[in-house]
Parts: sequence; structure tokens; C-alpha cells
Amino acid sequence: MAHLMSTSCSIKISSSYRPCGQPLSQDRTVLPNSFTIKTSKSPFKRLVSKGHRAGRSCVVLATAASVSKEVSANPRSGSDRSPNDSSKPQRVMVIGGDGYCGWATALHLSNKGYEVAIVDSLVRRLFDHQLGLDSLTPISSIHNRLRCWKAITGKTIELYIGDICDFEFLSETFNSFEPDAVVHFGEQRSAPYSMIDRSRAVFTQKNNVIGTLNVLFAIKEFREECHLVKLGTMGEYGTPNIDIEEGYITISHNGRTDTLPYPKQASSFYHLSKVHDSNNIAFTCKAWGIRATDLNQGVVYGVKTDETSMHEQLYNRLDYDGVFGTALNRFCVQAAVGHPLTVYGKGGQTRGYLDIRDTVQCVELAIANPAKPGEFRVFNQFTEQFSVNELAALVTKAGQKLGLDVQTISVPNPRVEAEEHYYNAKNTKLIELGLKPHLLSDSLLDSLLNFAIEFKDRIDTKQIMPSVSWKKIGVKPQTVPAN
Amino acid sequence: MAHLMSTSCSIKISSSYRPCGQPLSQDRTVLPNSFTIKTSKSPFKRLVSKGHRAGRSCVVLATAASVSKEVSANPRSGSDRSPNDSSKPQRVMVIGGDGYCGWATALHLSNKGYEVAIVDSLVRRLFDHQLGLDSLTPISSIHNRLRCWKAITGKTIELYIGDICDFEFLSETFNSFEPDAVVHFGEQRSAPYSMIDRSRAVFTQKNNVIGTLNVLFAIKEFREECHLVKLGTMGEYGTPNIDIEEGYITISHNGRTDTLPYPKQASSFYHLSKVHDSNNIAFTCKAWGIRATDLNQGVVYGVKTDETSMHEQLYNRLDYDGVFGTALNRFCVQAAVGHPLTVYGKGGQTRGYLDIRDTVQCVELAIANPAKPGEFRVFNQFTEQFSVNELAALVTKAGQKLGLDVQTISVPNPRVEAEEHYYNAKNTKLIELGLKPHLLSDSLLDSLLNFAIEFKDRIDTKQIMPSVSWKKIGVKPQTVPAN
Repeated sequence: MAHLMSTSCSIKISSSYRPCGQPLSQDRTVLPNSFTIKTSKSPFKRLVSKGHRAGRSCVVLATAASVSKEVSANPRSGSDRSPNDSSKPQRVMVIGGDGYCGWATALHLSNKGYEVAIVDSLVRRLFDHQLGLDSLTPISSIHNRLRCWKAITGKTIELYIGDICDFEFLSETFNSFEPDAVVHFGEQRSAPYSMIDRSRAVFTQKNNVIGTLNVLFAIKEFREECHLVKLGTMGEYGTPNIDIEEGYITISHNGRTDTLPYPKQASSFYHLSKVHDSNNIAFTCKAWGIRATDLNQGVVYGVKTDETSMHEQLYNRLDYDGVFGTALNRFCVQAAVGHPLTVYGKGGQTRGYLDIRDTVQCVELAIANPAKPGEFRVFNQFTEQFSVNELAALVTKAGQKLGLDVQTISVPNPRVEAEEHYYNAKNTKLIELGLKPHLLSDSLLDSLLNFAIEFKDRIDTKQIMPSVSWKKIGVKPQTVPAN
Repeated sequence: MAHLMSTSCSIKISSSYRPCGQPLSQDRTVLPNSFTIKTSKSPFKRLVSKGHRAGRSCVVLATAASVSKEVSANPRSGSDRSPNDSSKPQRVMVIGGDGYCGWATALHLSNKGYEVAIVDSLVRRLFDHQLGLDSLTPISSIHNRLRCWKAITGKTIELYIGDICDFEFLSETFNSFEPDAVVHFGEQRSAPYSMIDRSRAVFTQKNNVIGTLNVLFAIKEFREECHLVKLGTMGEYGTPNIDIEEGYITISHNGRTDTLPYPKQASSFYHLSKVHDSNNIAFTCKAWGIRATDLNQGVVYGVKTDETSMHEQLYNRLDYDGVFGTALNRFCVQAAVGHPLTVYGKGGQTRGYLDIRDTVQCVELAIANPAKPGEFRVFNQFTEQFSVNELAALVTKAGQKLGLDVQTISVPNPRVEAEEHYYNAKNTKLIELGLKPHLLSDSLLDSLLNFAIEFKDRIDTKQIMPSVSWKKIGVKPQTVPAN
């Protein structure tokens, strides 16, 4: 059964509780202290979700498709998109919409006037509990996030809590929400996590591959016109000694020529799972006529978008630990807390990077300009290339401007990767669709650094150093010592 | 717990039971009517395997590694290999050793003097039950097969029954048998099976990918010098418009050059699972120093090898149905029973083919000449290329010589594939190692045709036509009607 957690539920709020905290914008939003119950013609089951704080309880409705129909009939308010623009996708399902990129994307699309549903098992929050990690920023529960969004903007984001590897659940989300586009962030997305031990390597590939297979079958069975926007990674390509093209390369060989999928050389069980996904999706585009866009994303940095900045209950997560933290975010947090920047090995590892504000922009561009039926379209989604040493130098310089004493150390590389190599990846297709990049500048670094400084008391310095080794991975389940 | 089914077990045989049937060779082998119980210093659990026929019971021992040590100390008899050739791998684990290629390979390696263990869940036999299919040839149980092999040759093949997706089981097989090489046939190997319905698509990818991941982890953890010989498929490459190389291709692009993995374009969830495996294995070679050979095998035809021909209880399976039957084998069975040869679509689909006698030869060559530590070596394992129309013409001609009236019909292609295309695949590496191909000739066709004629009373003509459509696959589980 689909666990549709309607966010427009009945909430009794005690007078001392502010459901959405203090608005951050100067025009303070008046928050409602009650929500209406959404009714449905369909029979429904009552699910009681116990409140996380005293004095609250939330009755949520598990309904059939009529809820989504009701929602789609609602007039849009504050939309950037014309209500008459019926040729464009209207209803977007964001799988993994409680995660770092997914949350920012869900809010952005909702703000742009799309009807949005989040599908998420919330397992990313479980990983934090299991590994003893936490976001630098305090993040609200998904339920509070969505209530706050509704309170501030008047917009409803529907929420389906469940695992897309459970096809019965996924089927119900499709039949209930009837998406025009699916943005699929719903994967285990950390390379180090996939290299902790055998069981996590297997989990990563099983979860990611089977989840994506289920999404493909759901589209074929229930919404064949639905456009799949799948998040891949630039890491699928590895570091070849030739230019990296966008998904395909034309090869002349022994007097003949063909345009073929660009060869992949992934370097972790996570990255490999993304290659598997890409191959599976490409096949279904050919065999079934699925329309799909594969966004091979670079390393995302930053934490604020227009939407997540609206209120502290909308804050996005910011990971700085050795498992989920990515290079630039980690460096800013390290600089803020006075920890030397941890460059792995020689630091010549070059990758594509992008601001999270560009992630949400790229996804919207892909949705607004869908792939054709049967087309497997690949975009490289990054805006600039940097080596790790270049990033460290940029953070050092920005930190010094803020009066921080920033040091850099080289730590043994826990990964198996080239530390000095050629790297030149193409990224023109999203620019052609209209992407206006936010380039990494001193001001952004300042902003990210200031954010890190603001929350530096929350930093657990034990989580900073890399804890996962590509070579030492074994079959024994790794546990986290309580220290 | 590993289900080690030692074949040298105590069997009481009633006077009317011939444990191995009638030997086929003119020098009739005297079959023992009892086997000795193999003892072990280790504590063991007694497993009672109920006999399949009245009057028999078999006590088998689940032991620790001492059994395998005892076996390796046995002098070899009838070996083609020098007992002093200690640099060559001695102990070979054949995963999937009860299947079509696996059974022939296990016997061949045993006959060549290797110590062999079969690891198999026997799920291939379950597929037949579930789909209402059967091998054209009557095949014995794995237990009777191995008893017969022991009786005829004096050689013991150890048997571990279990699922390699169960890592606890796989670990015990590794620690008990201590393989020098692992030949991995243990996958769901039918493209149509993977395209029956969603659950079988998911099963295929989960079973194949996780099983192979477990094998890689077992090698890394327990036998890091062990050489992995993995069966891939030529189908991973698809039908590109350029020559197909063996695993890698050197690409010059924008003034730079690199040798990269050959681009893959798989065309079923089964073929995709093999691509996923290849990518996973390549990564572990680089990251962990695993030594691996990927055998991209063409379509295998034929049923007899020197070893499986020794006795009817050693007969290999021969699949002719629309799910597990492959092109040439199917055509010979169709000709034998007077069914028109079923050419899918235009019949211009060209693939690499090989005799099963070459399959076993190629695997032995790979084992005898192992990859280096860290090397991911790819061989294209086929001997000749044919289009489907060419095969149909060859079978028609051979059938006419035997007095058969062979017709050909074109049936709607159940697959999504090019029906007319360029195809030129390289296959020199195994030849360089010493492969002496059995080429498809009239005599072989006669032999296979005669075999089909011998067993034609066992043919279920309802199984001949293709029953699985690439485009019609859905999420609803398909069941087999009893008709």
C-alpha cells in the first residue's frame, strides 16, 4: 500500500508551538495555526502518525487517485509558469525528494509552479543514525518541512513515504499522483558508503539498480508518456585520456564509423550502480520507447537555494563527514573549524563541479524540454572543472579574507584513482537549453564559509577524516564504535 | 552453512538397481556397487539426503576444509596434466556446474586432471518445472551424474548445493574447497526468461549482479590469488557498425588517444546483467588486484562432448524451447520433428557461434593461462559467424540429406534488434592460446540432427514457438497455463 502522507492534514497546535519557526525573510509570513483536512471520495484508511513533539498529532489520509486529481485542479498561485502552458509537464514526482539535491529540487519545482510529489523512504536519515553522522545544518523532519513550505507559499507538496524497490508501493504512487515527469534522485549516492563493507556494496547496487528498474516498469505500465529525468554522475566516465563527450562518442575504426555510448570506467560500487542504471535505461528507451534524460552530474557544492533560504525549517542538509561529504563542502567546514584541509594524495584529481542552485536549474530545464519518446538523452551537468588542489587554494584564500588560518595537509588517498591525469569534459547541452551558471567565486565561498562558521559548534571533528578505504573493504560488516 | 554433498558417500544398492545405467563405450566400465565413506578429522554434521528411488539412502558429510585437502593429496589417474606442473591451477570451482555449459566444463576439467568442485543451486531445473519445459535429452540428477562420473573414471567431483547470493554459503565453499580458479557460469542465462515479466527481469539482474559481487568479495577475502573466469556474452556488444574488438578499443579523439572499454549495447535484461558484471569485475581488478578473464561467449550449439558421451547418465541437457533454446539447437530439433524452422523477422541477425566442445576447451585454456594479478582480460569466445538465415539454410541442407522435409517460416520477431546489420567481431586471443575450433560442418549438423531425431518423441511442440515478447513485457507475473 502506498503510504501517502498528505501534508494538508489536521494538526492541533498548542499556543506555545510555532509550526514553522521564525521566518527568515523580512516580510514575515503569517503562518496558519491549522490546516484543513483534505477529503476524498475514495474510501480511505486512517493512518495515525504520532507527533514528534508533545501536544501534536497528525491524522493523514491514505487515498486513491482522487487526491491527486483534486490537487491538479487547484489554481496555481505564485507560479512562474503560464497556467495555459499545457504542452509542458505539469506534475513532477521527485524520488528521493528528502535528500540533499532532491529537497532543493522539489522546492524549486514547486516554486516554479509544477505540482510536485516527493517519494522517499527517508533511508538517508537512517544512514546518519547508523553511522553516527549528522548534517552540519539542523534539518527538520520531512513532515515539518512540507508544512512549513505550505505555510509560507501556500503550495502543497504531496508526500509518499516508502521504498521504490517495493513495486506495489511504487505502483500506487504512480496511479495516485499520475506524474508527467519523474526526477529520480532515489539512490544511495555515496561512493565511500558503497565501499564500507560487502553488505553496503551489495545494498548500493541492489537498491539503485532494482529501484530504477521498478521506475522503468512503472512508467511503461502506468505512464508511458512520462519523462524520466535520472541523476547519473560524471564519475561514470572515470578519467580517460581523451575528451569526455556527453553520453556518446563517434568512433572511426578500420574504415567504418558509428556513434556509440561513451565508454565508462566507474571507480566505486556506487559509481558502477549508476553505470548499470544508465545501461538499463538506454535499453528501455530503445525497446519500449521510454523517454529519458540522464543527467551526469558533477560534484555539487553549496547549501542555499532561493527556496531553502526562505525559512530555517526549509534548510537543506550539508554533509561534511568522510562518507557523505563532498570535496568543496568538506573543505569549507574544515576551514571554519580550524581543521587542515584534507587533500587526498597528490590532489591533482580533477572533476566537474556545480552550485546546488544550478542543480535545481538543470533539472527544471530537462523537465521543461523533455526527451522525445524512445530518446535516451545524456547531459553532463556541471559548470566548471577544478582539481582538488585548486579547490584547496580557493578555500584557503577565501578563509584568509575572513581571518581564518587555513592549512592544508595531504592524507593517504583512501580511493583508488589517478591523482594526476588529463581531464576535459564537455558540458554544452544544458547551456544550450538556457542554463545560467553560478560560478564558484569568492563571494560564494564566503557564503558557504560563513554558513559553516555559523554552525561550527555542531561539527563533530571525529567525522572529518576519511574512514573508508577502497582497498581495505572486506566482507565483515563494519560497525561504528561509540566513542 | 555450506551444503557440501560429498559424492563419495555410502550407498546401499539393491541388486536390481544399476547405479549408472549401461555404459555407452564398448569397453564397459565395471561399476562399483558401493562407495567408501570419506572421513574427516573435523567435526561434521550428518545430512541425510533421501534417495530418489526406493531402497536407497545416502549419508553425506558436511565437513570443513580437511576433505578438500584429502582430495588434493589423492594421486591423479588418467590425467592429461603432469602431476609436477605445480605452477598451473589445480583446484577449479565451477559455479553453475549443473547447467548446459557448466556440466560439460566440469567433466572436461575433471577429465583433464583438475580437482573440480561444482557449486550450484539447481535453480535451472526449477525454471523448467515452473515454465513446464524439459530438456530434449533426459538428464540425471546431479547426484547420479556425479556418482556415475566417479564410477566410470574414478574421479571425484565435489558438490556444494546452495545459492551464491547467500554469502555465508559461498564463504564456506571457498574455505572448504580452496579454489585456485573459479569458473562462473552461475547466472540466469536466458534473454527471453529475463523478458517474461518484471519479477523475472528483477530476479535476473539481482541474481547475476549480486552473485558475481559475492564471488569477487569471496576471492578478495579468502583466495586473493584465485583466477576468476567469468562467462560473459557476445551479446554485450550489440551490433555496432564498426568491428567488435576483444573487450577494449583504442580511440583517437580531438588529437588524443586512449584505450578504453569497448562500448556496450546490450539488448535484454539478461545481456545487461552481464554488462553490469563485466563493469564490476573490471573495477575490482583495478582496485583490489583481482585477476579475471571475461569470456564473451557466442551462441553455443551441440550437446556431446567427449565426457558427456561416456554414459547416458552423463548426458548434457539440450534446450529447444522458446525461452532457453538457442538458434541452431532449436532449428535441429524443429527439423527433426517436422516443424518449420522459425526465423525471427528478416533473419539477417548475425552472431558468433561455437560448438560446446570448444566452450570447454576455451575455459580450460583460460584456466591454464591465467590473467595476471590486477588484469581484466577479455576474450571473445566464438569460432564462426552466421546469420540466422545462413543457419536455416545449413539445417535445411543437412536435414534433406537425412531425408527430412525441412521448411522455414518467418515469425514476427519477439525481440527488439536489428535484423540486417554489419557484424564483424574479432576472436583471435583464444586461437593464440591454442584453441582448435570444431567448425560447423555437415557432419556436426548430422550428429546434432541425429540426436534430435533419437529423442523426438520427447519433444513438446507447444514449446517451440517464441512465447516472450520484448515489447509486451509487463509488471504482472506471467504464469504458465496447464494445457
